[in-house]
Amino acid sequence: MPYELYYWPTIQGRGEFVRLALEEAGAAYIDVARAQGVEAMIEFRAREDIPTPPFAPPILKDGKRVIAQVASILQYLGEKHRLAPKNAAAAQWTHQIQLTITDFVVHAHDAHHPIGGAFYYEEQKPEAARRAALFRKVRIPMILDWFETILARNPKGDRNLVGGRVTYADLSLFQLVDGLRYAFPKATKRQLKKTPRVAALHKSVAERKRIKTYLESERRIPFNEHGIFRHYPELDG
Amino acid sequence: MPYELYYWPTIQGRGEFVRLALEEAGAAYIDVARAQGVEAMIEFRAREDIPTPPFAPPILKDGKRVIAQVASILQYLGEKHRLAPKNAAAAQWTHQIQLTITDFVVHAHDAHHPIGGAFYYEEQKPEAARRAALFRKVRIPMILDWFETILARNPKGDRNLVGGRVTYADLSLFQLVDGLRYAFPKATKRQLKKTPRVAALHKSVAERKRIKTYLESERRIPFNEHGIFRHYPELDG
Repeated sequence: MPYELYYWPTIQGRGEFVRLALEEAGAAYIDVARAQGVEAMIEFRAREDIPTPPFAPPILKDGKRVIAQVASILQYLGEKHRLAPKNAAAAQWTHQIQLTITDFVVHAHDAHHPIGGAFYYEEQKPEAARRAALFRKVRIPMILDWFETILARNPKGDRNLVGGRVTYADLSLFQLVDGLRYAFPKATKRQLKKTPRVAALHKSVAERKRIKTYLESERRIPFNEHGIFRHYPELDG
Repeated sequence: MPYELYYWPTIQGRGEFVRLALEEAGAAYIDVARAQGVEAMIEFRAREDIPTPPFAPPILKDGKRVIAQVASILQYLGEKHRLAPKNAAAAQWTHQIQLTITDFVVHAHDAHHPIGGAFYYEEQKPEAARRAALFRKVRIPMILDWFETILARNPKGDRNLVGGRVTYADLSLFQLVDGLRYAFPKATKRQLKKTPRVAALHKSVAERKRIKTYLESERRIPFNEHGIFRHYPELDG
């Protein structure tokens, strides 16, 4: 039975971290709202017979299991599809990295929506300018430097964040860098020169066979100004 | 060997979710920055011999293991100290709830700091007023309604979020409600009337023997205007 993924059909958003893991795993899945319309997702979320009701998408359904929260979904898929180490300490470390990416994704979103998602960007442009400047000057260097340190300290080499083979954390770091390159091209280009290992990991993930096929397919929704990573030139610099 | 907890010594903050779990477990721990000064934490974070460098506190050290990210620390402690179910699906659900609390904690913080932690509250008061209004009117009801639904749907009864005994998710929900009551007393009081199971859980956790002892001790740092939950009367209503 294929997995069912419930997520917004027109954006990469948080769902993309799950899509990338499913694609790398070669797993069969239905992207429900893309295949059947967003109503299918809304109906699913309104169901009252789910004892573990998710707060928000993305949601993964695996048979009777209903799992939400990106990092928890990835922990689950990582174990099932060998996208995480078996060793408990290494698996925890992989998850910890993912949780830090989760935190960063909020900052990436709030750079253009500091007052909240209930207002349009156009209603919070001055506030976004202030917050995005901080994001560019402090947050982007801070997080990419951290990843560079992790890669440099990995006893198994600097090609992967954890151990000597790809994990969902690598896929997620690819997505984070890809999003930053789209949203803040100038600031990101500058920073990636200082973090060559991060830049190399982004490239190597993009070249993985299944990921490459996916990125070139129509299943990969292009970045746009409705998702988390948005390109507003006035916020870059 | 006691656990070592590295966290800011003058606030509850994110560290409090870890402190509550350690207290409920009756575990021996050193709150390092409180016992030895904040320099001890800064030195620890500057160490270059840690292969899994945390991005930010709270950090738990258990022998050679160094673990960060509240939800990951709680997952670790939950398994060790029976503060989470053994069943894999129930353990995942407990963790998923915690991750949703993690998301909410960011919103609670950003209600008073929408432009970011690098500016004082006084430098972002109009922005905070806009964002806090949304937080009060939309976020607080949404999250507490969600918890009420979880409690109502729990097949083992509505006294706990997961299964029939206390988990770290219950402790964290206590802390979340306690923080909201401090920061937004009017809005929270109104909402808790509509979510009686949540209000009852908050009360029952506070009355647990070890938690009660902890809350009455000087180990419990009082809420203040440096942490996540801050009481600015102009943001309540």
